[in-house]
Amino acid sequence: SAQRIALVPGDGIGPEVTAQAVKACDAAARRFGLDLVWEDYELGADYWRITGQVVPPDVEQELAKADAILFGAVGDPSVPPGVLERGLVIHLRTAFDQYVNLRPVKLLPGVPTPIKGLRPEQCDLVILRENTEGAYVGAGGFIHRGGPDEIATQESVNTRKGVERLIRHGFRLAMGRPRKHVTLVHKANILTYAGDLWQRTFDEVSAEHPDIEVDYVHVDAMCLYLVTQPERFDVVVTDNLFGDIITDLGAAVQGGLGLAASGNLNPTGSAPSMFEPVHGSAPDIAGRGWANPAGSILSAALMLEHLGHPEAARSLEAGVKAVLPRLGAMRGPEMGMSTEDFGDAVAAAISEG
Amino acid sequence: SAQRIALVPGDGIGPEVTAQAVKACDAAARRFGLDLVWEDYELGADYWRITGQVVPPDVEQELAKADAILFGAVGDPSVPPGVLERGLVIHLRTAFDQYVNLRPVKLLPGVPTPIKGLRPEQCDLVILRENTEGAYVGAGGFIHRGGPDEIATQESVNTRKGVERLIRHGFRLAMGRPRKHVTLVHKANILTYAGDLWQRTFDEVSAEHPDIEVDYVHVDAMCLYLVTQPERFDVVVTDNLFGDIITDLGAAVQGGLGLAASGNLNPTGSAPSMFEPVHGSAPDIAGRGWANPAGSILSAALMLEHLGHPEAARSLEAGVKAVLPRLGAMRGPEMGMSTEDFGDAVAAAISEG
Ligand SMILES: CC(C)[C@H](C(=O)O)[C@@H](O)C(=O)O
Ligand SMILES: CC(C)[C@H](C(=O)O)[C@@H](O)C(=O)O
Repeated sequence: SAQRIALVPGDGIGPEVTAQAVKACDAAARRFGLDLVWEDYELGADYWRITGQVVPPDVEQELAKADAILFGAVGDPSVPPGVLERGLVIHLRTAFDQYVNLRPVKLLPGVPTPIKGLRPEQCDLVILRENTEGAYVGAGGFIHRGGPDEIATQESVNTRKGVERLIRHGFRLAMGRPRKHVTLVHKANILTYAGDLWQRTFDEVSAEHPDIEVDYVHVDAMCLYLVTQPERFDVVVTDNLFGDIITDLGAAVQGGLGLAASGNLNPTGSAPSMFEPVHGSAPDIAGRGWANPAGSILSAALMLEHLGHPEAARSLEAGVKAVLPRLGAMRGPEMGMSTEDFGDAVAAAISEG
Repeated sequence: SAQRIALVPGDGIGPEVTAQAVKACDAAARRFGLDLVWEDYELGADYWRITGQVVPPDVEQELAKADAILFGAVGDPSVPPGVLERGLVIHLRTAFDQYVNLRPVKLLPGVPTPIKGLRPEQCDLVILRENTEGAYVGAGGFIHRGGPDEIATQESVNTRKGVERLIRHGFRLAMGRPRKHVTLVHKANILTYAGDLWQRTFDEVSAEHPDIEVDYVHVDAMCLYLVTQPERFDVVVTDNLFGDIITDLGAAVQGGLGLAASGNLNPTGSAPSMFEPVHGSAPDIAGRGWANPAGSILSAALMLEHLGHPEAARSLEAGVKAVLPRLGAMRGPEMGMSTEDFGDAVAAAISEG
């Protein structure tokens, strides 16, 4: 039966990259006999400027009924920074309890990485970022705001339930991967409360999985290792803020933000999961055909996998892998292929099988 | 008149690398006619195991009277993680109000960087990390610890005074550099309280310095840019935790932790400043002559500069620059030169001028 996908293209390069992802999904749907129905939602900067709302409750209720959400990017110079990011991206992640932010860091063959001598087989990890709590809860406040004695506090709130479900997802994922290795990334020597909860929970879940090898790495050291020895890692579990930081670095290592995919997963299915490229709306290059749609297409691949279509997912990945080596650069006019041509080439590769 | 330097070699490779820094300082002292007096303090893992104390109050009072502290590294497998780091490093940073953690990220000629095509002139920035507050204050707590409803909170506390003095130091430093550029790194779109204080303070200080160019970069994007375009940056100001993270990454970019120097500065002089390599105690390679003392010697150079001996400081830097290109690797047996030989070669270069 039909699967309903809510499409939220958003701002800047969001619409042009998601259009290619839709094209790729449709090609895969034809080839593998899937029934995908797309419903467009015009959220983002314009919508906010006209209506004063980021996501009105009735739209949220409709989104909640979708089988999945394919998201582009939001953010525009005309909107105060943070309004759309928090009101849309962060809001949906928490409202739909998408507690796993799954971000593969994978160097694809033929993609130039900024790291000397790094080979694809040395860079194939998955970072699972807790996606509903930590420093992202927005807890904190001011005392004497604006005066010389001002204090601003910002709180990271971590629950056993939230930490445990993310870590369990990491161990489940690791069970299905050849290396069966999970790394906890935190800063437990300094963040002694949050770090203690993460470490204790990690140790307990680890004790239930004697087949899985584990280790712990401080977030500062993680940044160093991601550059110098990414082959150390298989599955990485970490909190919301550290995950935000290390996945951007991971994107750099795997050849650029334009290539990085992510899934905001609600593994219970109580609400839809949402798939989005790691990059932002890049208003500076929007509308020129200079955006790399690989991140969006690979996010759509994660979506197809999540919707129960692993073969179709792999055909999108294979299509991207076939086209990437033909690019002159990973974004911009030097790409040597427009955003749309890239999408057409991937769709053709999928159709041809 | 004599300047009294408290030497805290610490654990692991701390003693072997600081010994080379002392040697280099003594060579510079002879050449430039400085009067440096060293006083050794045997703090670290052994001291803690025997006495049960990390820094006893009387030792702290003596350290407080020094003109500067040269610190090696602490940490040993025999001590619970965090005890020495917090009890010694973090404690002295705050007790002595060393509110600026100055960490140059500089690619020296002849040093192999993991980043493709990166040239020394593209990587010459200074990161100023707020060093006394933020998430490092250790505020937070547990509710229902150990149970299924446990919550662990961790608070970042930021004061106007603390933020402003760090930012002002950044602008002062930028005034004396050719590019006159300061970047604020934070995550202001999500950490709306702390980020707001940092951004408002930054904007106000910036308004007083019309000659200085400024910009703002999110910490996640910063990690990406540090790898792909470090030439964007001149002086970077940021909070304690973000500074911890991005300076380890900076160390990777400039060729390794073994080369990275830092100064914990108390610019008011109300207590001594402390100079330490960014690396840790590396117990795995301790005592074998495999540690690279460059980070320690370059930290000593920052110390000499701070003590009012810029020529002597430059002679240490020049010595390190002369010796580094002779190494076969940046650490380990492949270095092709022992830790001590490295120190001797630097001292010889300093003496010869
Ligand atoms: C847009 C922003 C709020 C978001 C985040 O911080 O999570 C982004 O950086 C990401 O990584 O998805
Ligand atoms: C040892 C540790 C407490 C310390 C820190 O987190 O500041 C270290 O990582 C550093 O960067 O100096």
